[in-house]
Amino acid sequence: MRFISQTTADGVSENLFTVNDVPGVLWTPAHSTDRRPVVLLGHGGGQHKQAPGVVARARRYVARGFAAVALDAPGHGDRPRTEQDERFAAELRAMMAAGEPVGPLVARHNGGLAAQAVPEWQALLDDLAESGRLGPVGFWGVSLGSAVGVRLAAAEPRVRAAVFGLVGYALAEDAARVTVPIEFLLQWDDELVPRGSCLALFDAFASAEKTLHANSGRHMDVPAHELDSAERFFTRHLLTEESVTG
Amino acid sequence: MRFISQTTADGVSENLFTVNDVPGVLWTPAHSTDRRPVVLLGHGGGQHKQAPGVVARARRYVARGFAAVALDAPGHGDRPRTEQDERFAAELRAMMAAGEPVGPLVARHNGGLAAQAVPEWQALLDDLAESGRLGPVGFWGVSLGSAVGVRLAAAEPRVRAAVFGLVGYALAEDAARVTVPIEFLLQWDDELVPRGSCLALFDAFASAEKTLHANSGRHMDVPAHELDSAERFFTRHLLTEESVTG
Repeated sequence: MRFISQTTADGVSENLFTVNDVPGVLWTPAHSTDRRPVVLLGHGGGQHKQAPGVVARARRYVARGFAAVALDAPGHGDRPRTEQDERFAAELRAMMAAGEPVGPLVARHNGGLAAQAVPEWQALLDDLAESGRLGPVGFWGVSLGSAVGVRLAAAEPRVRAAVFGLVGYALAEDAARVTVPIEFLLQWDDELVPRGSCLALFDAFASAEKTLHANSGRHMDVPAHELDSAERFFTRHLLTEESVTG
Repeated sequence: MRFISQTTADGVSENLFTVNDVPGVLWTPAHSTDRRPVVLLGHGGGQHKQAPGVVARARRYVARGFAAVALDAPGHGDRPRTEQDERFAAELRAMMAAGEPVGPLVARHNGGLAAQAVPEWQALLDDLAESGRLGPVGFWGVSLGSAVGVRLAAAEPRVRAAVFGLVGYALAEDAARVTVPIEFLLQWDDELVPRGSCLALFDAFASAEKTLHANSGRHMDVPAHELDSAERFFTRHLLTEESVTG
């Protein structure tokens, strides 16, 4: 983990870094390097580690007592796009223009990105742990963020709680290996991910404690109150004395 | 509305009353009679207006700035049980002992209770309005509480926001007339109400703003964090300046 720059505003330090050449950003209380619970932020498709929604979320988590960290997913942000990424983007635009269902196409492409991204997140966790900064870990990410996050949580026992959502396809086997508490977001009128596939995926999680939040609206219309809800979810599961010391 | 007794503890006054011989209880800040948002609390089957869960909820709402009010449902609490109530209870026990699905039986019986209860709640609202105490109105009630509440919200424009849940059958037509914001609770492993019937009912609500919260666990296992969530829901919809003055 190689730190590149630090800027501090409103009590929050934003630290740009790379880990094995993958660009990332770590948010902490100003200039702090102590151990604290960390929320991993997985961005959505077409977004990146410093998309406005990711940054806003990170700053709120820091205010609550967490650190937050994001990586650019393969083909996103400061990372090169492959020919396959370009082909996918073109095919996606064409299918959406034609009104064809894109769920399976998106799931297949995101599955490929996730296969690459999971070990990248694990390398980041290794480095944070080695630096003594890593408290209990939560993962937040919907859509592409969940395509990565569900597979990460299935493979990685350090993830203790997760907020997922807006995905349905090709993740059931991984979900069946996830046993930590989850909160799962579903958009009732999602134009990209069929409702039934989301419900089936929620059902597949092995977690004893799981909550589905379904809201009216389309894929991008997750209401603002879910931001508060995710914050309270991570507070319950990562900030209690038991989980911090456990 | 005839007030019978008042007891005050920890800053909350509990006022027993009857309205057209239906026994109820009104919780307010100590000795207060001013106008404020009111949450109607519909209890579950076999419970009553002062069941521990109802009282705990009422006290929390008062601490937040609401008044809260509950009525005994027909055949519950201080109200006489009819022969039909007794037959229903016996039949329910027998079917549950035999492992038979009880959803339709419960829905039919609760529908009968609701037909009686809806005008009782409306008479209560009339009296509270006449006394100058009635601010914006919310309804909270699951299971039997929803069998009554969904029909009330369909018939009664004074209900501005509602938390429902743990019901599925025989309410779709009423739900299609409900347009106010709702939060709907579903227990993923509900042994009394089939999951599919709950999902179909949630779908039927005409509300532009609706949220489904599905949690792992059985009918009675609604997690404690849903208490907080309902409180925030009513705070958003009834305590903002706009809704209080609107």
